[in-house]
Amino acid sequence: MRRRDFLVGAAALAAAWTASGRALGDPKTEGSSKGAGPLTPPPNGRIPVAVALTDGATVIDFAGPWEVFQDVSTSDRDQPFRLYTVGDGTRPIAGSAGLQLVPDYTWENAPPPKVIVVGAQRGGPGLQAWLRKASPQADLTMSVCTGAFQLARAGLLSGKPATTHHDFLDQLARQFPDIEVRRGLRFVEAGPRIASAGGLTSGIDLALRVVERYFGRPTAERTASYMEYPSRGWVV
Amino acid sequence: MRRRDFLVGAAALAAAWTASGRALGDPKTEGSSKGAGPLTPPPNGRIPVAVALTDGATVIDFAGPWEVFQDVSTSDRDQPFRLYTVGDGTRPIAGSAGLQLVPDYTWENAPPPKVIVVGAQRGGPGLQAWLRKASPQADLTMSVCTGAFQLARAGLLSGKPATTHHDFLDQLARQFPDIEVRRGLRFVEAGPRIASAGGLTSGIDLALRVVERYFGRPTAERTASYMEYPSRGWVV
Repeated sequence: MRRRDFLVGAAALAAAWTASGRALGDPKTEGSSKGAGPLTPPPNGRIPVAVALTDGATVIDFAGPWEVFQDVSTSDRDQPFRLYTVGDGTRPIAGSAGLQLVPDYTWENAPPPKVIVVGAQRGGPGLQAWLRKASPQADLTMSVCTGAFQLARAGLLSGKPATTHHDFLDQLARQFPDIEVRRGLRFVEAGPRIASAGGLTSGIDLALRVVERYFGRPTAERTASYMEYPSRGWVV
Repeated sequence: MRRRDFLVGAAALAAAWTASGRALGDPKTEGSSKGAGPLTPPPNGRIPVAVALTDGATVIDFAGPWEVFQDVSTSDRDQPFRLYTVGDGTRPIAGSAGLQLVPDYTWENAPPPKVIVVGAQRGGPGLQAWLRKASPQADLTMSVCTGAFQLARAGLLSGKPATTHHDFLDQLARQFPDIEVRRGLRFVEAGPRIASAGGLTSGIDLALRVVERYFGRPTAERTASYMEYPSRGWVV
């Protein structure tokens, strides 16, 4: 891109914001952090990341963070995160629009994760019980999109700030009056161990933020750049 | 986001561009179109979108466009695209970082698609033969990331402009001297029927551009907004 075009583009975007009071397409372009400081990677081995996968799993909700974590490399670790999926069973499930996915583990036999990713999906009692068991031992449990409802049902958001897809903010507030629902944000960090992203692509930003918390901003920048991800919404 | 912060952010981004000659993380923020006009949806039924899926399929490359196409709705059609996956067989394959995926169809029995999506993956002779057979009947064949090499191997990019992931531009040019390799773009449209995206998340922008070509800009805007996707890289 030529520099002139870039500057014109930035000015046009600013003008659109000015004119409408909201930027184009009402983008959520920042996160909110409340006491979420650095995370410490284990001294040896990779950081286990468990992705919950049940019927109806919205594809970008898990695929965005999946790609982020797989693309991280640091000066001394090539792929510091180890990804796996966990579901009701290990038969294929139907993700959104019918994408067929096979969970690697069940709630019963999944290795204990340090990071838990819960996107929009049908869920069920197995997921709830697993979240209650696994979350207290993890560094971070994060939802994407209406995955926030799964965390809420497991009691993980009680008394905490949280967000979800913009079409479901009111429902989250109604259904769980003890959650402090936050609007217009890419993600909300409710202390060091719980975070919730907005809808769909917002999960990419929250995952990049998690990378920053483990390995610092330059590593997260490098990951975003490798992914050709144009958003800076992960910077708090 | 408060308006002041937005403007400061835009100014800072412009300053970073000025200082370095490249914007932060060298984002590709625009596409290039050469004779790619509107596409006509079929009078009845949904638009079949086939996603090629072989071992090593990079997750965001197919998941980004998948999510875009599934999230489209128009005034008279709720989900105008019908998505399915095609591979060497219908046993589980291992996508990037080991994500287990099951193709819906084989190259032999897949329904004829109107849109073909080819992300980074191992590929093979089956994919090549299928591309040569299916692409001439499709409205559009699009690659994401190093999926461009698959299109190139099938001869679909000969004599055409194309792009790929930023780390593989030189290799594409070296390996296929008859391709006019374009740099620094979210995607390249080589006429009405072939397009190639840059790396990873760039595929989201190209898919939004395809939505625009079928259903117009407001529908593409609405889809991006629903996805909370902050990039305008799909606007050419």
